Amino acid sequence: MSSYDMIDAEKPRPTKDRLIRSAAELFRTRGYHGVGLNDLLAHAKAPKGSLYHHFPNGKPDLAMAAATWASDGLLRVVAESFAGAPSFSEGATTLCHKLAKLFDMTNQWDGCPISATLFVGPENAEFRKHADHLYAGWLAEVRDHALRFGASEEDALKKSEHLFILIQGGWQLARARSDSNVMRDLPNKL
Amino acid sequence: MSSYDMIDAEKPRPTKDRLIRSAAELFRTRGYHGVGLNDLLAHAKAPKGSLYHHFPNGKPDLAMAAATWASDGLLRVVAESFAGAPSFSEGATTLCHKLAKLFDMTNQWDGCPISATLFVGPENAEFRKHADHLYAGWLAEVRDHALRFGASEEDALKKSEHLFILIQGGWQLARARSDSNVMRDLPNKL
Repeated sequence: MSSYDMIDAEKPRPTKDRLIRSAAELFRTRGYHGVGLNDLLAHAKAPKGSLYHHFPNGKPDLAMAAATWASDGLLRVVAESFAGAPSFSEGATTLCHKLAKLFDMTNQWDGCPISATLFVGPENAEFRKHADHLYAGWLAEVRDHALRFGASEEDALKKSEHLFILIQGGWQLARARSDSNVMRDLPNKL
Repeated sequence: MSSYDMIDAEKPRPTKDRLIRSAAELFRTRGYHGVGLNDLLAHAKAPKGSLYHHFPNGKPDLAMAAATWASDGLLRVVAESFAGAPSFSEGATTLCHKLAKLFDMTNQWDGCPISATLFVGPENAEFRKHADHLYAGWLAEVRDHALRFGASEEDALKKSEHLFILIQGGWQLARARSDSNVMRDLPNKL
């Protein structure tokens, strides 16, 4: 889980970095609307002016950046899971096991970092478009691995969507049950 | 979609009913933290005192009631979908098509009424327990239909979990894409 390093709060980091990491962490735990600016600044140990200095439009700008950052972390987890795998299905199994570990590391609770941060309401078309774009990146990464393992274009697309949907839905059930084994069992449904 | 009648605001209803329906509608659109008490009261056309009269602990009590009410509506959709079906897979297909319609009726946006209302943060064990309980009700309803169509106890459990996970995950992708066809395509993954 080394690449999904949301939890390493040890190293000193620039203020902008700290703001993005804190936003990603707090949003995925309580959702965009559940996090106030004061909570964000306190968590990031950042002075008030710094938020608007780095993100002129404030919280929405920061949310876009936090979702992108969290998404990049998950892209790396996907890439690592498939990189050393001897087959698509073993790569998918590794990915689900890594996500189960991540689930247990985050109090068996945190939500999808994209939907928790960007699904704020129907009127925010920019957030929705960005969520679609980030999800498309995950789907493309998985599709590329399916292609590499010999799937046809159509089949690779189907496989990536199926795995994505299972992971998203499994995560919801895992949260309600506080049980990461829901994630470990997902590859049996592929 | 007659039974999932969240949208018929025509009939006069008691204040308590109106509060529950408004809460269910607003929470599933913007999430628990995205809805203030004033929005709730205005939407329900209810005087301020009425909330604490019917729900002594305020917003959390109302959220529990709203989630139960919304869940009961979905249970009826599940029951209707399977009632007239000649097989489990045709019942599942009908359910996914009904949900696709519901998705289009709610601006291709609203979230799962349970998770949007009760997944408020890791510290609220009561909400999480209630979400688990409500999801277990959906799973049991689907499992019972699988049993009725001749599945073994173990297989019926698997089928119900698989369908639940596909619906939850498919709904997330449908939201990001604003595309209800994601839901209509789910039965092909069963």
